[in-house]
Amino acid sequence: ACTMSTSRIAMRRLAVFIFTVSVAFQKLPSCSAFSFFLGPPSLAIHGHRTNPSSNVGYCPASPLSTDWRRRSSAIPSVAEDEEIYTLADVSETIRRDSLAAMDELLDYYSFSLTDFSDQPMLLPTPEEVSTYVHENFDAVLFDCDGVLYRGTDVVPGAPEAVKSLMDSGKTVLFVTNNAGASRSQMREKLARLLNVDALTEDQMVGSSYSAARYLQKMLLVDEDSSKKNVHVIGTEGLCEEISNAGFGVTGGPSDDRPGMSREELAEYSFPEHGKDGADAVVVGLDNDFNYRKLCVANVLLQRNPNALFVATNEDAFDLVGVDARHLPGNGALVKALEHSSGRKSVCVGKPSPVLSRLLADDYGLDPERTLFVGGRLDTDGRLGPGRGVKTGID
Amino acid sequence: ACTMSTSRIAMRRLAVFIFTVSVAFQKLPSCSAFSFFLGPPSLAIHGHRTNPSSNVGYCPASPLSTDWRRRSSAIPSVAEDEEIYTLADVSETIRRDSLAAMDELLDYYSFSLTDFSDQPMLLPTPEEVSTYVHENFDAVLFDCDGVLYRGTDVVPGAPEAVKSLMDSGKTVLFVTNNAGASRSQMREKLARLLNVDALTEDQMVGSSYSAARYLQKMLLVDEDSSKKNVHVIGTEGLCEEISNAGFGVTGGPSDDRPGMSREELAEYSFPEHGKDGADAVVVGLDNDFNYRKLCVANVLLQRNPNALFVATNEDAFDLVGVDARHLPGNGALVKALEHSSGRKSVCVGKPSPVLSRLLADDYGLDPERTLFVGGRLDTDGRLGPGRGVKTGID
Repeated sequence: ACTMSTSRIAMRRLAVFIFTVSVAFQKLPSCSAFSFFLGPPSLAIHGHRTNPSSNVGYCPASPLSTDWRRRSSAIPSVAEDEEIYTLADVSETIRRDSLAAMDELLDYYSFSLTDFSDQPMLLPTPEEVSTYVHENFDAVLFDCDGVLYRGTDVVPGAPEAVKSLMDSGKTVLFVTNNAGASRSQMREKLARLLNVDALTEDQMVGSSYSAARYLQKMLLVDEDSSKKNVHVIGTEGLCEEISNAGFGVTGGPSDDRPGMSREELAEYSFPEHGKDGADAVVVGLDNDFNYRKLCVANVLLQRNPNALFVATNEDAFDLVGVDARHLPGNGALVKALEHSSGRKSVCVGKPSPVLSRLLADDYGLDPERTLFVGGRLDTDGRLGPGRGVKTGID
Repeated sequence: ACTMSTSRIAMRRLAVFIFTVSVAFQKLPSCSAFSFFLGPPSLAIHGHRTNPSSNVGYCPASPLSTDWRRRSSAIPSVAEDEEIYTLADVSETIRRDSLAAMDELLDYYSFSLTDFSDQPMLLPTPEEVSTYVHENFDAVLFDCDGVLYRGTDVVPGAPEAVKSLMDSGKTVLFVTNNAGASRSQMREKLARLLNVDALTEDQMVGSSYSAARYLQKMLLVDEDSSKKNVHVIGTEGLCEEISNAGFGVTGGPSDDRPGMSREELAEYSFPEHGKDGADAVVVGLDNDFNYRKLCVANVLLQRNPNALFVATNEDAFDLVGVDARHLPGNGALVKALEHSSGRKSVCVGKPSPVLSRLLADDYGLDPERTLFVGGRLDTDGRLGPGRGVKTGID
């Protein structure tokens, strides 16, 4: 169906916002600037408004970023036999949104009174974009949802862009805050949506993988060969990824009892955890999150003050439905557990230093020749003056 | 059973920490100092450690307060036929905890090098405490859990103290952050535990009542006679209190489906809410809290940006079980919804200015002659030098 969809729509180059990370990357190991360019999630925006301290290390938000995401529209998934929303509607909506965002960007630079030392670079034709990218970068990192696809709808031109880069020998990675899928699930989905069989699991850098790698680095040290236990609030895919990394896994989607009374928590025997408790608690988005899961995770953190507390991301919400409803994101679950436990989580998704380090260490990327392609003006690239940001549009 | 329990234990005067609110009360209408003496909840402590900005308006925590609550023990409820924990154990635990806390207080003032202009006043005998309170105050406000009872166990001496004050014509109010009970449920529980039939609903100032009064003041204005709708995350008791105040109520404990998928939220018809949506969303502690409830409340706040967002309290946790497990408090739920909605809630429990105003306006208390009896060194009275704090102990 996806192949058919792609073939039915007009071919368009992917309208991307291109941000060179070279300037930021040079600032490692402080990482704050790099993490900025990987993109502060919605959290940072809220933080900016209600908790200035969460913006430490970031440059100020541009006028563009503050409300852009909350205003942006959502589009429904398209079924072939559905009359109301045609595939053409979807393509048109994506195209219109992309151009509207770029118009905002251009307006900002045209009318701002600020004196920018580094104006955005505008490449007027698809050929120029293509030439610029191929000549200047060895590695291209893509955000996924909203950049390569929306829901189950592939973004026009995305398959061709990915194929072209891979065919010409570029390192292509997929970097997403979505922790719901394991690497193998993520590869399967992207291969199907983009119709690119050559994709490998190594190219998949979801926050579930970032969490697993972080846990390996922190918990699997040579001197201690005992099995480590990780308690998960999240999907089967997240559990699978952490299990694949060599950990015992408890929690996950298995517990379907939503409530927990005072009396039950007082007597609860933590049957899965035994006397060893948990060496880490990982929170990923769980659409079946409930008070019972919060209770268990909270007492596990209480019992082992040395347990790691990992957040796959701190996103505030995602957009669903024709009226762009705000589906609560993983950050909501993280904040709940942070408040009850009195602990601060370590974020391993965008825009964390942990993810920056993973990309730098595990993939040996040359920062001067690495490009990140994001889909949000506010999160994947809040543009500040003098940051060496370049943009391109078809 | 409670009467029997009380009769079986040695009569003791209630070991109370007595804080005059006179100095603080004079500072109205800024309310910050008054709310301090009503007691910052656990939130403020966490806030102090991880988010200094949340302490704005409070005086610094004393060395006593920071870890006291997290270290304090929990005791089980006692059944008459239970062998392991006898009633004597319970009474002894309460007595020991009270004395230990007071010892800390005395140590602090004995060994601190700070020059206090207002040392705590120590009243060595029960008679002196009684005389001092009866001569200097017209109104006495009691925190409930941990002060008058623990779980279902009445604190030794508490019934006699309450009865004595009421018999001598004092205004006696019960002020708790617990939002689970309506005023009538709260009266029934206290009358039973304290064995005081004369208690009236007017004396009950739980945060459910505070929420209902706040909603009345904000939403029920003369010019607009339309029915206002309040969506509740919380217990039946909280819903009842808000319904009694004249509102249409949705939400509450009725929804037993824990999960909510992207697809379901996209299509959800908000059957209870219709086109008018919610005029307010109230979050009280709900042991059946789940992602589905979070989703519905979040989209209701999104749909009506003018909807009030009320938190009955922001407590981080409560203690349950013999090993003092941390049962997540309402603050965890509030933080989740704050993060996903990008909104800040209005707290109507301790230590909020809203509650201070309610007590001042509705009960006509003379601040010079009002006493608050709290149970926590850290929350009901974080003692700072020069605040006019007086303490008494038997």
